[in-house]
Amino acid sequence: MTATNIPLSGARLWDSLMEYARIGGTPKGGCNRQTLTDLDGQARALLQRHAEAAGATLTLDRLGNMMLVRPGRDASRRPVAIGSHLDTQPTGGKFDGVLGVLAGLEILRALHEAGVQTEAPVVLVNWTNEEGARFSPPMMGSGAAMGIFTEAEILAKTDAAGAVFGDEIARIGWKGDADPALLQGLGAYYELHIEQGPILEREGLDCGIVTHALAQHWFDVTVTGEDAHGGSRMEGRRDALMAAAECATMIERAALAAGARATIGRMTLSPDSRNVVPGRVWFSLDTRHDHEDLLAALAATLRGEAAAIGARRGVQVHFEDFWISPATPFDATLVGNLRDAAKARGIPHRDMPTAIGHDAVYVARHLPAAMLFVPCHGGLSHNEEESITPGWAEAGLMVLADAVLASAGLVRD
Amino acid sequence: MTATNIPLSGARLWDSLMEYARIGGTPKGGCNRQTLTDLDGQARALLQRHAEAAGATLTLDRLGNMMLVRPGRDASRRPVAIGSHLDTQPTGGKFDGVLGVLAGLEILRALHEAGVQTEAPVVLVNWTNEEGARFSPPMMGSGAAMGIFTEAEILAKTDAAGAVFGDEIARIGWKGDADPALLQGLGAYYELHIEQGPILEREGLDCGIVTHALAQHWFDVTVTGEDAHGGSRMEGRRDALMAAAECATMIERAALAAGARATIGRMTLSPDSRNVVPGRVWFSLDTRHDHEDLLAALAATLRGEAAAIGARRGVQVHFEDFWISPATPFDATLVGNLRDAAKARGIPHRDMPTAIGHDAVYVARHLPAAMLFVPCHGGLSHNEEESITPGWAEAGLMVLADAVLASAGLVRD
Repeated sequence: MTATNIPLSGARLWDSLMEYARIGGTPKGGCNRQTLTDLDGQARALLQRHAEAAGATLTLDRLGNMMLVRPGRDASRRPVAIGSHLDTQPTGGKFDGVLGVLAGLEILRALHEAGVQTEAPVVLVNWTNEEGARFSPPMMGSGAAMGIFTEAEILAKTDAAGAVFGDEIARIGWKGDADPALLQGLGAYYELHIEQGPILEREGLDCGIVTHALAQHWFDVTVTGEDAHGGSRMEGRRDALMAAAECATMIERAALAAGARATIGRMTLSPDSRNVVPGRVWFSLDTRHDHEDLLAALAATLRGEAAAIGARRGVQVHFEDFWISPATPFDATLVGNLRDAAKARGIPHRDMPTAIGHDAVYVARHLPAAMLFVPCHGGLSHNEEESITPGWAEAGLMVLADAVLASAGLVRD
Repeated sequence: MTATNIPLSGARLWDSLMEYARIGGTPKGGCNRQTLTDLDGQARALLQRHAEAAGATLTLDRLGNMMLVRPGRDASRRPVAIGSHLDTQPTGGKFDGVLGVLAGLEILRALHEAGVQTEAPVVLVNWTNEEGARFSPPMMGSGAAMGIFTEAEILAKTDAAGAVFGDEIARIGWKGDADPALLQGLGAYYELHIEQGPILEREGLDCGIVTHALAQHWFDVTVTGEDAHGGSRMEGRRDALMAAAECATMIERAALAAGARATIGRMTLSPDSRNVVPGRVWFSLDTRHDHEDLLAALAATLRGEAAAIGARRGVQVHFEDFWISPATPFDATLVGNLRDAAKARGIPHRDMPTAIGHDAVYVARHLPAAMLFVPCHGGLSHNEEESITPGWAEAGLMVLADAVLASAGLVRD
């Protein structure tokens, strides 16, 4: 494969990134454009206008997933898609998700300018609610399209203020007619995303070829002891917080030993008073591993060790499954296309997994999919200070375009 | 000293406890009678009526502290006071505070029935807002009376709904004219209270002679690391929650080794998301010890060890003083009166400290004061299931009465 000769512009991509970042832009330079808000609607409208100007037409499904379709020469071939998301975290950055959508837009623009045709149609996808910040869980649009969630359950979801997903998508005017399952008919799916980790930057690489997604197992953990006055003797206390703290350090140690990743991101104490020993503590636990079987073994270890801690302290530690996602391999051919493109362009790269959920991971359960990472500074993401260089964005754009065109096939006159 | 012969009735005291518990009584058998609510006003009115029926007259200060005064023969002698509080926690019990007030009422009733006179006046005190549940901090009425807080700062306090202390006390009709500092003129102060700990019940004792109040040092502790995605590798994380957990277990170990008491009752994680490594954790820390110097040494140890944990993990751990209360000895003569009374009546008892703040602790900074504990089941308090036996209540009443009369002096005809 050789480098694509269509007039891709890293500068135009960068300008677009800065333009979209103003929709929900924050004083600290980040972006707050949560799903199904008016700002989300504005960004969608801009994308439609830009993609139509580049010769694509919109198909909109009932969950607001946008498909911007550029026809191919061979109508019998399944479309090759490029996708990601325009929604952000409440204190999000300018690149998480947006880079992948706007790189796809840049490819449509370059194809349009060059007047070249592809064999297969090329589709740019903007998924609804990847972030899961306003409506939980994340990756709703892609999950529902791929049959992991039902349409009805998604439409009924409510945000913290009680607003209903189905009402909100209609309110902002982005509820379409197409069946979300239509997206299962794609022939291939590529997603460019920032790494959201420090590895590529640290190793001086411009691209990460994502080979698979880690297995994830999320838990709700409840520790039940007994309230006591803060003045009571420590001997004989059944302190749920001290037990939870011991569990946390045990979890950290066990996860490190197992080569896993473990995060306690939320914790609540009850009764939540300065001078009352907590009788109950709840915390979330997010564990991830390359290998499903090792993640399952870790879960067994954590349950066992926590039970022992509980028994010694006279408290109960209860692990409840919150969410489980299997390890997901990406498609070998598509991964090979990305790797070959990076090689051909001389772009420093490495293979790596994604430890983070992405729309591509749900898509990969149904059709050939692959992902490409570019670095972000300090691995910082879900943060207003999230940043990348124009060079990284351009490297990702070039590799993505080459792989997409390898799948779609350029019509040579 | 011999046992007092006035007609004290444990049964009448118990009936009163059950009667007052209906004012704010909860379905679970507890009491929700928070300070300066309408229910607080109802309980105050009932107490006034009962005490006046027993020959006492009300003096009310500008913070709502009630003094129910029974004159003595010798108007030059400073009054001997019996006090505690009628306010409760939101999910409080029937005995915390109320027992001390109603035991004082029972003493007034018995004196009145017997028609006996005391040398010194006897005063029953109901302090405003001992609990600190609605308006923080606790022990406002006694603290302001003893000059620890200014009257102006108390009147300006607001509750979670924004209601102002000064407005609320006027609204319920319990703002008086007397200067709170008037209470500094008491000659002696006794307070009967439930132990709020398990020691007396476990040891089969009916009374605890409280010799002193523990020193207390409360902190705000802030751990600052860096947010990271839950999918990021654990190596290199600066996880504020895992650092806080290690600090918590260190604090527990150090406090146990020092013979202190340490409680982490509140904790918040930021950004508080399941799949984000917390960059910031705040927690409250309440430490207590019999000896001020050992408590200070513990604080130094905790700061040092926390700094070492922080340095190893690349996070900062910052301890800020929130509240410090010195160790407070009770008056040797009054403590002796209580101990002698228990001995004379053959009531099983022991000396013990209070690890918990009480109005008596503030009072003891200005005048002779002492406290008497009776057991409560399982040490349970600040809980709707708080419970005691009628026998414990009666034992406390008898010892309290004997000590009060030893201080006030019975006029023998």
